[in-house]
Parts: sequence; C-alpha cells; structure tokens
Amino acid sequence: MKKELLLIAAAAVTISANAQNNKEALSKAGVPVSALAPQSQITFEEGSYPSSTNVLRAEYPRVDPVTRKAYFRFNAPLAHTINVVIGNDKFTGLKDKDGVWHIETEPLVVGFHYYFVEVDGLRLTDPSSNSYFGYTMNAGGIEVPEGPEGDYYRYDKNIPHGQVHALHYWSDLNGTYRNINVYTPADYDKNPKKKYPVLYLLHGMGENENGWIRQGFADFILDNMIAKGECVPMIVVIMSGDMVTTSELRKFDHNVPEVYINELIPFIDKTFRTKTDRNNRAMAGLSRGGMQTCQTAMPNLDKFAYIGTFSGLFRTAKDQLPTIYDGALADPAKFNGKVKLFYASYGTDEAAMGIGQAIQTYREYGINIREFVSEGTAHEWLTWRRSLRDFAPLLFR
Amino acid sequence: MKKELLLIAAAAVTISANAQNNKEALSKAGVPVSALAPQSQITFEEGSYPSSTNVLRAEYPRVDPVTRKAYFRFNAPLAHTINVVIGNDKFTGLKDKDGVWHIETEPLVVGFHYYFVEVDGLRLTDPSSNSYFGYTMNAGGIEVPEGPEGDYYRYDKNIPHGQVHALHYWSDLNGTYRNINVYTPADYDKNPKKKYPVLYLLHGMGENENGWIRQGFADFILDNMIAKGECVPMIVVIMSGDMVTTSELRKFDHNVPEVYINELIPFIDKTFRTKTDRNNRAMAGLSRGGMQTCQTAMPNLDKFAYIGTFSGLFRTAKDQLPTIYDGALADPAKFNGKVKLFYASYGTDEAAMGIGQAIQTYREYGINIREFVSEGTAHEWLTWRRSLRDFAPLLFR
Repeated sequence: MKKELLLIAAAAVTISANAQNNKEALSKAGVPVSALAPQSQITFEEGSYPSSTNVLRAEYPRVDPVTRKAYFRFNAPLAHTINVVIGNDKFTGLKDKDGVWHIETEPLVVGFHYYFVEVDGLRLTDPSSNSYFGYTMNAGGIEVPEGPEGDYYRYDKNIPHGQVHALHYWSDLNGTYRNINVYTPADYDKNPKKKYPVLYLLHGMGENENGWIRQGFADFILDNMIAKGECVPMIVVIMSGDMVTTSELRKFDHNVPEVYINELIPFIDKTFRTKTDRNNRAMAGLSRGGMQTCQTAMPNLDKFAYIGTFSGLFRTAKDQLPTIYDGALADPAKFNGKVKLFYASYGTDEAAMGIGQAIQTYREYGINIREFVSEGTAHEWLTWRRSLRDFAPLLFR
Repeated sequence: MKKELLLIAAAAVTISANAQNNKEALSKAGVPVSALAPQSQITFEEGSYPSSTNVLRAEYPRVDPVTRKAYFRFNAPLAHTINVVIGNDKFTGLKDKDGVWHIETEPLVVGFHYYFVEVDGLRLTDPSSNSYFGYTMNAGGIEVPEGPEGDYYRYDKNIPHGQVHALHYWSDLNGTYRNINVYTPADYDKNPKKKYPVLYLLHGMGENENGWIRQGFADFILDNMIAKGECVPMIVVIMSGDMVTTSELRKFDHNVPEVYINELIPFIDKTFRTKTDRNNRAMAGLSRGGMQTCQTAMPNLDKFAYIGTFSGLFRTAKDQLPTIYDGALADPAKFNGKVKLFYASYGTDEAAMGIGQAIQTYREYGINIREFVSEGTAHEWLTWRRSLRDFAPLLFR
C-alpha cells in the first residue's frame, strides 16, 4: 500500500477552478455540495473532496469519486508509524518533512466504510470524522459516493420528509432504560386519526440502534419510496439488539425475542398510532439482526406476517429445520400459507457467508423464500440499503 | 500528574464483593446500575466503575465517584508517550511490563468532561467512549457523577417521557439540508389538539445540535420538571448554530438570525402544534449560543418575550448598549416593559468570562436582568444543565 511521497506531491494541486468546473457533475455523483470548494490554500490531492461523513469543516479524510481512493493526513511529527485500518485492509502512511503523515488507499468499493487510525500500534478514532458505532466501538466513517444510482438513499428537498423520534422506555427485563429510534412517515402528523403498519428493523453485531439511520439512511430511503408511491407509509422501529444489561452482567444477545414480544411491541403500540394485527407487522434485520429476526418472529407468527433477513440467513442443516424456532418450520406448507413474505438477501461479494446455500436448503425443504442479490457488494451497508429498498415495497400490500 | 505504577498495582483489587456492598449507595450517587459489577477477572482500580459515557461493555475509562479520579488504560506496547487530555489538563500515562498504559487523573470536578487521547503527539478519540461533538470534533466523554443533587437530569422510570424528534429541513439560505432536534413533552401525542409554547435552545461554539441532548440531558431535565409541575409543558427546538455551509465556503456563525427568523421558526410552526405569539416563544443559548440568542431575539422582540444567556452574556461597553442589536436596548424602560424575562447565568469558576461584570453594566444602564450563579462550576455542561433547570420554570407563565 506504500506510495512514494514524490508522486503524491506531484499529483497534488490546489483544486479551485477544477472543482468549480466539475461541480455539477460531482454533485450528481453524490459528492456533497458543501464539499465542492476549498477553504484554504492547502494543496489537496487532485480530484479529491472531503468525505460527506466528515465533521463540519474537516478537509480530511478526502475521497476521489472517480478513482475511489481515500486520502488521510495527520500532523504527527513524533509518531513512528501511522496506519489507516478499513475493514481487513491496512494502509500505511508516509511522513513528509513537516511531520505530516499522508495515507492513500487503494481504490475502495463504493458506499460506507468504517475506519480506525492506528498510531504506533494503538487503534483509535479520527476526531475529524462523524462517529459511527461499529465493532462495538465508535469508529470513523468514509463514504465513497455512488452516482445517481445512489439517489434512493439521499435527501430530496422536493418531497415531504418523515421524522426519527428518539425515545426511551424502561425495560424491566434489562433493568435499565433503553433507547429506541422510531421513524414516522411524512404524513403521520397530518392525519391524527390514521393508523400505520410497523416494520421492526434490526442492526448487526457490533452496531446499535443508530446504524440504520446514520449508516443506512433508512429514513431517506423510506421518504423517497413513500413519496413515489413505491411503498406504503409505515412506521419503522429500531432498537439495540444487544439486550442484557443488568447490574450483574453486561452481555449480548440473550433475550431479544422476550424483549420484543413482552416489552417493545406493547410499548410501541401504546405510544404510536399502529395497526396491531399480524398482517400489519413486519420484522427484518441485517446479519446477526437477521438471525434475531428469525428467533423472534418465527415462534410468534401470530404477531408477524413478514420476515426479512439481509445478509442474515445462516446455514442450517436440512434435518434441523423442522425443530428450530419452536418448530415454526415443521410443516412447510403451513408456514408458506401463514407467512406472507419470507425474504433473504445478500451481496455477491459475501459468498463466504453461505447465504445462497442456506436459501437453497430452505427451498429444498419446501419453504418459500424471496431472494434478492445485491450486485458487487459485500457484507456492508450498501447491501443493506439496497435490501431495504427492495424489501419495503413488498410489505403491507 | 505522574504516579508510581507500584502504588496503582497495590491499590488495584478485584472489585466484586466490594461493589456489591456499595451498590445501593453508588446507584444513588449516579453510578449507572449497569456499571456496578465486574465482567471479568481483570483487576480494576479499587472503587472505580466504568464511566456512564462508555460504549456497551467498555470497562475503561473508569471513574471513582468518591475521589473523583478517572482511570484510563491503553494496550500499546509500541507507543512512546500517551497522554489523556481533559480541557487544559494533560495526564501522562505509564507503561507496565505488558505494554499496557495506565493513566490516573487528579480529582476532577463533577459533571461531564470531553477528553482526547494523545499518542506520540497525535490527538485522537477513544473508540471506547460514546462520542460527543465538542471543539468542532468528535471527542470522548467522561461523567464524574454527582449525588442525588444530579437527579434532575437523570432518567426517572416512574414518570412519563417526551420524545426527541430528529428531522431535517431544506435551507435555501444555507444551500443544504439542516438537522434539527425537537423535544416534545410526554403529553404531546395524547392531546392532538393542544398547542404548545416553544423554547429555541442553542449550543456553544464547537458543539452541535446534539449537545443539549447528549451532554446536557435537556430532555430528561424537562421530563422531570414537567412531571413535577415545575415548568409548563413546552416544545424545545435545537439546531446547529454553525450556519453557513454553501458550495463556496463552509464557515461559522454568520447568518444565524436570518436562518431562525426566515426559515426555522416558520418551519417549526408549520410542522408542530405551536403557539405562535411572542408570549409563547423563548430563546436561550449557552456561551456563543447566548450571543446568538441576543443577536436573534433582541432585534425581533415582536417574536420573542423571553431571552436567556447561559455563560453567554459578554461584556459590552455601556456607551455601546444603546446601539447594539438594532437599538433594541436604546430605551431601557421600553425594553424592560416588553421583555418578560432577560436572563443571564454563569458558574462561579468562570470568572474570567466577565459575565458578572456584563450583568452589572446592563443593570447600571437600566436593563432588568435575572441572574443565576451556579456554585462551584465552570464554563461547562453542569453550569448549563443547572441553568436550564433554573430558567425553564420562569417561562410561559
């Protein structure tokens, strides 16, 4: 991953006029308008712009939307090594004569990436990035912009917008209060008598209740699709899937179904204008959240008619299918008749997850599954944004 | 700030039984219930508990609620120096034989503190902390718990709770969409015809629209006071005070009054059930937000009857008072008659801000000011939590 500093220096120019000329094209490609001009006379890498995930006024990290490379700089004359860690890749920096470290990545895939800064072996977070909860830590993030094909998750000023309500409820099961994010569609407050169907939407391991909004843009996706009539107006409820937090032990993932069935759903139905029958309640989750969705919805088909797993249908031996989930799948014909949608998606670049094989196993056993494959994406947020866009129109029809 | 590692080692014990015995007392002192038990056999500093600001399961940083010291550990065998930076103070770490750095602070004042981790001179953010936007960056945070005197900003499971609505509007003035947080009181959705007064609440320099919720607990403060009948149910609107974000330039603090008067207030009045006369609209801000409050509300007294500055009334020469803010103060008797409340607060430990003198100047000139002094606090969130608690009961009566 090393590059000669000489090359970097040669390529760096003050972007000014260049940026101005390309502004319209880049804006359409998803580069934020606010990132399209320089603030100072620092020379930036040609063609690069501040990532849309940066905090106000931060010039770095930068992304080149054409080459899809990201650039980082850190002023650290005393450091001995600096790496930027993005997923499984580590990009090594070089220190210039002023003590500023320059890091240039290889071309990255489009979409959102978590990153950390590793200084002399210690992995920390870049304060210039908005923070994104992943890996059970606060990470930095960069967004390599898609072109207009990414418009479905972008804010559109010309349509009505919903709201994300942050609220809390006291969980007796957890012995603490819990945070919930609830998306209500744009017309929710305009129709004070109208009741809405509800999608419970779960994040993945190491993330939290903010992931679907901050990394996933679920609110913008729903706003856009509802405005176009592509899906029905719905409430979306997002809570942390890391559940047990008592005075004795803080641990993961042990009472999700209990919390949803006994506490969260009653609380939501009491607090929002919801339709409360099973035909108006869906549950979907990504990765581990897909597993939690099956664990919660399958044994409670009296409460859910729609079940979605995004990169989250895991392999199960065919002879175990009759007994898992309290026997929900024991009679495939009965299951198929009762469940209006059982959905599984994955990206073409996450073959190692084995989701294609899992779907195959379920189908051979006799379970109907609607399958969606995201082209060229891995176990990451672009797969899940696309999955939500594909899944939401199938609900509550 | 250095301590002998030997001393730290001698003091460190497995907390187990000890924590169990003190659990009730510590819970009352504001140590989160979830922090009161160990997860593993690591030996922690005796009497210390994970800060309530930590991410799920993070054992460090830890805080001793009795000594008010904070403890940090970083596994970094290759680092040459590690400091924790809290405000103007730097606490230096010592590396043990396993390459783990131990940092112990001096006693800290109670309340919330931003911090950064400085590794070989590079200042970054601790991924084990929830992130808090301050200094125009994402910082870590620690909370040194108060005793029961801090209950007014804590979640009370036995009362009804409001919601914080995160929403966006398109700003023509800024050429981008803007994020807004809107607190609605617990009974907002129970009374679909009822209209509410509105407090516009501003953050300080380097912070953002989340500060009053995440660092300030404004939602819990209002929930608690409304439940007790200490203040009237009100809507609270919080937006970023860093305004100009065009394609040409991203900069601070230049069109705040214009954005509030021409865009935000009309948007809020259209989107929420608000009372729209001046007697039902207040504005208050902390630090620079106090200045922005005066800049916005003073020249628009037809729109605001209540004005609050928390650590944010800055010194002005007496002979300038008649002309500032479009001459709003030119006739003190007229101003006093029109404004139902002009409020200024500060902490006893921020004398250098000169707010006491500023109040004196305004008073000598003939302006009525309600003054509140927070005992033993500085230019920090504990001053502002207390200010909100003191200020809110005075509104809309």
